[in-house]
Amino acid sequence: MQKNISLEEAQSLIFDYCPLTEKENNHLADTLDRILAEDIVARENIPPFSRSPYDGFVFRAEDTAGASEANPVTFEVIEEVPAGYTAQNAVSKGQAIKILTGAPIPEGADAVVKFEEVEVQGSKISVSKAFMHGEDIVPAGEDIAVGDLIAAEGTVVTAPLMGLMASLGIAEVLVYKRPKIAIISTGDELRDVTEPLAPGKIRNSNSYTLQGYLRSLGVEPVVMGICKDKKEDVAVLVEEAWKQADLVLTTGGVSVGDYDVIRHAADYLGAETLFWKIEIKPGSPCLAAVKDGKMLIGLSGNPAAAMVTFQLMTVPYIKKMTGRKDYCYRKIEVTLKKDFRKPSPRRRFLRGRMLYENSMVIMESTGEQGNGVLRSMLGCDILAEIPEKSGPVKAGEKLTAYIIE
Amino acid sequence: MQKNISLEEAQSLIFDYCPLTEKENNHLADTLDRILAEDIVARENIPPFSRSPYDGFVFRAEDTAGASEANPVTFEVIEEVPAGYTAQNAVSKGQAIKILTGAPIPEGADAVVKFEEVEVQGSKISVSKAFMHGEDIVPAGEDIAVGDLIAAEGTVVTAPLMGLMASLGIAEVLVYKRPKIAIISTGDELRDVTEPLAPGKIRNSNSYTLQGYLRSLGVEPVVMGICKDKKEDVAVLVEEAWKQADLVLTTGGVSVGDYDVIRHAADYLGAETLFWKIEIKPGSPCLAAVKDGKMLIGLSGNPAAAMVTFQLMTVPYIKKMTGRKDYCYRKIEVTLKKDFRKPSPRRRFLRGRMLYENSMVIMESTGEQGNGVLRSMLGCDILAEIPEKSGPVKAGEKLTAYIIE
Repeated sequence: MQKNISLEEAQSLIFDYCPLTEKENNHLADTLDRILAEDIVARENIPPFSRSPYDGFVFRAEDTAGASEANPVTFEVIEEVPAGYTAQNAVSKGQAIKILTGAPIPEGADAVVKFEEVEVQGSKISVSKAFMHGEDIVPAGEDIAVGDLIAAEGTVVTAPLMGLMASLGIAEVLVYKRPKIAIISTGDELRDVTEPLAPGKIRNSNSYTLQGYLRSLGVEPVVMGICKDKKEDVAVLVEEAWKQADLVLTTGGVSVGDYDVIRHAADYLGAETLFWKIEIKPGSPCLAAVKDGKMLIGLSGNPAAAMVTFQLMTVPYIKKMTGRKDYCYRKIEVTLKKDFRKPSPRRRFLRGRMLYENSMVIMESTGEQGNGVLRSMLGCDILAEIPEKSGPVKAGEKLTAYIIE
Repeated sequence: MQKNISLEEAQSLIFDYCPLTEKENNHLADTLDRILAEDIVARENIPPFSRSPYDGFVFRAEDTAGASEANPVTFEVIEEVPAGYTAQNAVSKGQAIKILTGAPIPEGADAVVKFEEVEVQGSKISVSKAFMHGEDIVPAGEDIAVGDLIAAEGTVVTAPLMGLMASLGIAEVLVYKRPKIAIISTGDELRDVTEPLAPGKIRNSNSYTLQGYLRSLGVEPVVMGICKDKKEDVAVLVEEAWKQADLVLTTGGVSVGDYDVIRHAADYLGAETLFWKIEIKPGSPCLAAVKDGKMLIGLSGNPAAAMVTFQLMTVPYIKKMTGRKDYCYRKIEVTLKKDFRKPSPRRRFLRGRMLYENSMVIMESTGEQGNGVLRSMLGCDILAEIPEKSGPVKAGEKLTAYIIE
């Protein structure tokens, strides 16, 4: 077991045990936020045929050679095609067909003129300028050509991607199954939100915060409930959770004051503890243990500490598990809005929100930064890093920030 | 009916008919992404009791008056309190109690010292400095005090808010019901993704893109299917959709070339058309009509045009309907990454994505900007505004951009 390692070392240790979830075929309409388990490659052109960009008349460009205001060319309109229909006839010399925006260009025609640019006399139109071959016609495959890669395996399905797949005739999509992740809350002091509070007891908030974050990540949470600080009880519940879920998360019991119940439970189960404690603040107390390829990640019982470790260490792991290729958080540079007065002997992550001011990204603290203060996770969309052995950070200084979920 | 109005005028016209959806009580675990229909006010303190910030011993501060390395004070340890339990005894003169991080401060005690800072000899400890009243003790209500407003009505429920509500004992939450929004796709040329494609036909992508966006907004889509370009058919389907849903969206049939089938269907139904066409590009062809307080919003059939109008005009309306107080899009200033070479006689919105470079927000085009090109909605998270009567825009110029869903 390694102890007091860096965040990056911890990630690398757990990434070695990251089973991909299975794949399943879903109907297109049920793919929002799912992760592609196949490349989406165009099997059709968009548009599927050459089409008109506006309401007008199509004809042979060569028939307009030499045409001018003074010397217009006359065409016989042989057909009028409604939207959604194709011309019955091909266009021959001296003929034109009236079509609408988006309509397929009839055979023989290779130029289009707007309604308002011709003079109509009964079934005849006159065109007073010369056109070139293909002029203004939208060629088949202009937006998307057969063989184009639209979205790679591991991409999250968004609304416009659903639309694109629909336009390409892709009705069934291979996606990764939603993984199941179990949540165990340890602590003799914990009461569920539905229970009355007794002296010395506090409410279990971590289970609900984690349920929310897991659902946001497209994961099905399996709530195992509250467990006493007894290694045998924890071990029984972890074993049961491993049967039901792909990953088990615990909160509490990972620091010395908690009697290290999670580490002892892992030993008791014969699991290998990969590491204990990482060098960040908040969120240092945590561990990962593995048995038969199944992972247990133990988070702090302190709400803010738990969520910072969850975001920085566990979210990339979960995203990787769900099949996402972009599983690492996005790092950006931000400018600190107000002084942060405390020194940072250890590598520290500040909770904050992004503000956009004059084309700049400003980071504003979301409040009190204590280990236990969940309130400052409200509205928090970035964690800004202060390197170890730093003094106070002044307003206007630049920090690297990690965009969180 | 007003014609060719501004985006803002169009919004103001439809906002006048924006029925709020009903309210319902949900269990806390089922509130993610729902909109609060009540203020969340703390009815308890967090922490609920004064507690110790670390593993240590508590005692009366006054007993340490004059204590020093040379002249330590000795306490009798009368009890050891496990996590989650409260002391059985009060602390009197000369007494101390051993407690763990987070444990409630026993009656009588008003100072705490860390384990590692005392000398233990059997049941006695010696403390070698003077403490002040309340020193290092976390007072009840330090994070959240009874009466604090945690989240206002109209706020979206996030994971940390779920956790905070759990910690405050709020098991049932009043939220707005998910509205139902119907989607009708008009066009003789449309085929569903599951149907074979015939000459001159194209696939219906708008219905799937809209389903995705609606689900992202927490709305239940009601898919009414494809309708021919015939006002009577459209009218029947709109009436049916109004019965099933709180809002009806159509795509197609809103420009002259489409025979204006939506406007004629609205007239046929006796609905009042509020406006037809707005002055933006893409997405100019659109309309809104109302009958008996129910709204019909007609979007373009061109995929990109439809989605730009949907994002700019319809999303704020839908958010308002769902009870959100932050229903207007967030506007930020961005710096254009590459030249946009076309002039913009009309107010134009460019599709792009935000890049963060050196603390700046850069906008990169997501591709071809044509009315019909859905592909550039992929990865699009902002729409950047170019004012009307603008020339080409150069790389490095600043634009106002609207953050979209």
